[in-house]
Order: sequence, then C-alpha cells, then structure tokens
Amino acid sequence: MTAPSMIQADHLVQFGSQVLEKVGVSAEDARKTAEILVESNLRGVDTHGIYLVNLYAKRIEKGLINPTPKLEFNKNRPAAGVLDADSGLGQVATLEAMNRAIEMAKEVGVGTVMVKRSTHFGAGAYYTLHAASQGMIGILMSHSETDVVLFGGKKPYLGTNPYSVAIPSAKGQPFVMDMATSEVAFGKVRAAAEAKKEIPPNWAVDAEGNPVTDATQAKAVTPMSGAKGYAIGLMIELLSSGLTGMAYGPGIVRKFDDWENPQNLGHFVQVIDPSAFTQDDSFLNRVDEVFEDIQSQPASSSNPFGKVLIPGAPEFDRRAQRLAEGCPVAPEIAQQLKELGDRLQVAWPR
Amino acid sequence: MTAPSMIQADHLVQFGSQVLEKVGVSAEDARKTAEILVESNLRGVDTHGIYLVNLYAKRIEKGLINPTPKLEFNKNRPAAGVLDADSGLGQVATLEAMNRAIEMAKEVGVGTVMVKRSTHFGAGAYYTLHAASQGMIGILMSHSETDVVLFGGKKPYLGTNPYSVAIPSAKGQPFVMDMATSEVAFGKVRAAAEAKKEIPPNWAVDAEGNPVTDATQAKAVTPMSGAKGYAIGLMIELLSSGLTGMAYGPGIVRKFDDWENPQNLGHFVQVIDPSAFTQDDSFLNRVDEVFEDIQSQPASSSNPFGKVLIPGAPEFDRRAQRLAEGCPVAPEIAQQLKELGDRLQVAWPR
Repeated sequence: MTAPSMIQADHLVQFGSQVLEKVGVSAEDARKTAEILVESNLRGVDTHGIYLVNLYAKRIEKGLINPTPKLEFNKNRPAAGVLDADSGLGQVATLEAMNRAIEMAKEVGVGTVMVKRSTHFGAGAYYTLHAASQGMIGILMSHSETDVVLFGGKKPYLGTNPYSVAIPSAKGQPFVMDMATSEVAFGKVRAAAEAKKEIPPNWAVDAEGNPVTDATQAKAVTPMSGAKGYAIGLMIELLSSGLTGMAYGPGIVRKFDDWENPQNLGHFVQVIDPSAFTQDDSFLNRVDEVFEDIQSQPASSSNPFGKVLIPGAPEFDRRAQRLAEGCPVAPEIAQQLKELGDRLQVAWPR
Repeated sequence: MTAPSMIQADHLVQFGSQVLEKVGVSAEDARKTAEILVESNLRGVDTHGIYLVNLYAKRIEKGLINPTPKLEFNKNRPAAGVLDADSGLGQVATLEAMNRAIEMAKEVGVGTVMVKRSTHFGAGAYYTLHAASQGMIGILMSHSETDVVLFGGKKPYLGTNPYSVAIPSAKGQPFVMDMATSEVAFGKVRAAAEAKKEIPPNWAVDAEGNPVTDATQAKAVTPMSGAKGYAIGLMIELLSSGLTGMAYGPGIVRKFDDWENPQNLGHFVQVIDPSAFTQDDSFLNRVDEVFEDIQSQPASSSNPFGKVLIPGAPEFDRRAQRLAEGCPVAPEIAQQLKELGDRLQVAWPR
C-alpha cells in the first residue's frame, strides 16, 4: 500500500472548483462547494471530503444535479421559510438556507428554513459553524438514504440522518457536534470483518435483524442506543420529509447507485440568536465558563487524550495540523481524481 | 412483597391536587400539576408519576418551591421569549411556556421560549404531546442534576438531560420521544447489581471512569452511544443554562438531597407550526404515510412485539390499559403517600 499524498488544502479547493466549473457550475458556486468539501478534509472527515467532487461531477453530467439552479426562497412567516434548491448542489442551497436563517434569527430571534429538492450537502458542521462564527447557534438535520435498521425491524430503512449543532463561545473554539444517528458507520463494521475481529453486539444486525458480533454476518448498522437513536432518526426523517414533501426511507435516491433520478432531499436548518434571550455577552461567557469547568475535570485512565474534550475539539486540532502539513489523500482517491481531472482537462495537484 | 394497589387515575389526581392545595398551591395549579404527574403513571412512566407529589409538598413546605409564583413572560422578539417561573412548580411554568410557544408558532411559524428559575417538571412528553394535540410539533429539552459521566471523564457531571419531541399525525397517535440522554437509567444498573447480573460494557463506568460489566462496581451511567450522547447532553446543558443564566453541571441543585436552595432550572421549549412550511394537511398526511410504511416492515425475530413500533406507541397502549384497570402503586409508595395524606388531612384513595 502506497502512502497517501499530502496535498495543500488550497490546491484541493482549486482542483475541485475547476472540475465543477468544467461541468457547468458558476465560478462562485464551484468555489463555495469545493471549499466546503475540503473543509471536511481539513477537519479529518475525509468521508465527506474532496473525493465527492467525482460523484457530483458525474451526477451533473447525467443531469441529476442542476449546475445552474435558480434557488427560490419563500419567507412564509417571519420565523419560517422554505428554500427550493432546484436540484442544485446541496452545498450551495444549504449555505444559502443557513444565511437566510441567520437573517431571520437576527430579526425575530429564531429562524427556521426547510430546504427542499436538494442534494447531498457534505458534512453538516460546515454550515452550523458558519452560524456560530456569527455568534449564533446553528442547527442542521437531514434525512439520507437507507442505511440503518429500524429498531425491532429486520431491514434497514432510515438513513444515518445526520444531526449537527454548533454553539459559539466568547473566547475559545465553538462546541460542534455532527453525528450520524446510527451507533457506528458501516465502514467500521466492514473494517472489523476484514480484520476478522468481533464487533460489540450493539453495532449491527444480521439478515434477521438480530444483533451480531461476527462482523461478516452484519447486514445493517443499528440506530445509536437502539430505541433512542431510532426515535431521533425518525424525528429527523419526519421533519426532513414531512415539512418539504420530499421522499422518505427506502424511497430516497441512493446517490452512488441511482443514475436515473435527482436526490430530492429535504433539510432542516435553524438558527437561534442568543441575544434574543440573554443580555450582552452573558450567553457566550457562560459557554466559556462551562467549557473551562469541563476541561478541568479529571479524565478516565483509559482516555487516550488524557483530558475531557469539548465536542469538536479534535477536529479543530486536526484542522490546524492539516493546514500546515497538507491533507492526506489516499492513493486510490488520488487516482480517481487524477482520471477525472484528465478527462475534464484539470490538472491534479500531484 | 405485597402486590401493588390498583388505583384509578382520577383518584390519584384528586389526591395529588388536594395535597398541593393543602401546602398553598392554587386549586387550578394544583390540579394541573397532579394531572401531569398522573399522566406519567398512566403512560407507565411511574418514575415521573404521583409519588413526586411527596417531594414537591416537602419542597414547598421548606420554601424551596413557591406555591404562588408570579409567572413573568417577556416576548423579547416575535419568535423568542423568556418565562420566569419564579421558583414555582415546573409543571405550571412549562405548560405555560408551551402555550406561549404555540401562540408564537401560530403567528410567526416557530416559537421558542426559555424557562428560567424553574423546578422539576415531571416527564417532558406531557408538554410536547400538548403541542401535538393542536397539530403542532412540540420540542422540550432541559438540563438536570448530575448523573452521567463526561465522555472520557472520571466523574459524573451532566444530568440525564431529557429530550422530548412530539409530532402529530393525521389519523393515528402522534410520534413521541422522551428520553434521557444517558445510555440507561441508573436504576437498571442497580437492578443488575441486585440480581448479580453482568451489565453490557457501554452502560456504566467504575470509580476511574472506565467501562464496567460488574454492576456492583458501577459509579455513574454513561452518555448514550458515548461521544454522541455526551454531545447531545452538553448541547442541552448549554441551551438550558446558557440561554437562561441558570446553574450547570454539578452546580445544579439535587432535588432529593438539597434542602437549602431552590432548583433554578432552565428549560428549552420550542413549537413548530407545520402549516408555516407546507400546504393544507400535507404534513400530517405524510407523517401517517411514513408510520403506515414503517409498521408494515418485517420485525426481527427477537422483537417481543412482533412488529416495528412508532416511538411512543407502547405508552399509548399502556395508557388505555391503565385508564381501564387503574394505575399500579407500589406498596412502599402507597405507604409514603398515605402518610403524607394523613399529615395534611387528605384521604389516600385506598
């Protein structure tokens, strides 16, 4: 196995932008989308990083993502709006929705925007952190394609339905969570199967929907904490599909497999302006106070960091490191992207 | 062990109301609070049921719950308000906050109310179901006293920080989740210790913060799904404390142990009006469609119900049964309540 290439983030952004422009996306939207993807690489979330530009370019070429969408925003009421993404890139629509929600929150305290006719938006943390960078609490939830067994069911039905929240602080980094509502990603189960290791009984189920420890028998991952994650995942489905009229469960288009239909996703975007509830900087200062108190708590002896972390902290550390050292790109991903670049006449940075 | 007494719900409500009136609560607030408590008994959530009237009465007598609070509501912006509970019963304040949020949601689409200077409100499902009964999506989160170990920490810090959401449907029962954000309640660990059974390694930690399977060594329960539940629990803490200025973590008053200080809790209450996002009944109909589809999915062979359930369904079944048969009250609880009644000259129903 060859070592990953280390590529500077701005080179990856440039590559991604150029690829998207070549398939018809405006320079502005292409750059925005590439930046959002590479931000995931910087944060160490390579599953949501630059390799997706390959998928997006192909879906644009097939007419399944609209490279030049007309985003239509309707502010139905002062705190509630709907953004029609017109099957454009999810990144562009979701960032626009977050900006609309920020505006509404500044005016009326809390702004909620449902995005409809959308496509994959990458990692949710980008958008919620965008709100946090303006002193706002950002919330983002979305349904996604089937991956997770129903609690008490036999077959996968709900998606990993991500849930991201970012909360700003006065002095330090914001709190940021960005989680799949499954117990683990299926990738971890697959890795255990390859390594011939047992998995904990709460990770996955077999073809009958029963818990398995033999990873080779795993057919679907479980909702986090069983019934609890099932409820949270279903709540996200009901908001995403119910408030937009988009598809649900197994009806959701599989982006890597379905080359006939646009994704038609729905997302829930909400922004809370802390200053609508508290005076001056008391919210931000309280967040700092809680963070400092938590970070001063004793760590368990099995904690590899040796200290209690605020959610999101490892990603901020990783980001600083990768900004300096470049982002590792696995050889097979580099090969795919190089081929994509060759085809579209865009130079791959290495 | 004696069998539990079976007592009609309305008799329990009457008992609870009279007790609270005897310690100075208005007839209206006393009845409301008793109804909310007994609703938990009906739903099978006895941990949040009528036995709490004993705690509340004592805290009122000690001056730690205000029997005649002046609730003060400030609608700071059209979608954001703050309700000062004046250390009254959490039930009265939280229901008032939910009603205010419903009004705001009807006007501007989404209404958010932070409750401050509050006390224990019982089970969250009551309030979110109250919103759902009016065709609204109800959301309620609250911090609570220390019970759950920090992820990677040695000691408990956050509370079980409950999270409840109810979503109405057109024809059937609503979706309702009402969960502690810990993996399990400490009661389940205690029960395993008494039964000398091993617990799964993800339930609890020992004095060093490390996972234990020997329940007798368990010192704190874990956040659900580890890092994920820690993030959700901390989000709830930051909203509850940060947006109200109330205490946090180990600073939160322990209601059964601290007889010097009022609880000073903060709660997050939000209502979403689906009609602000969708036309006519399309939201409610979509929810029904998803429910029917999920209920038609095959169950795992280990599913004791033989079918996939919508979150909240077992509680609705239990409610119907207990309305007919009465609520079981354990002998030791009946004894405590009878003694309370004797002291306050209120007749215990049995």
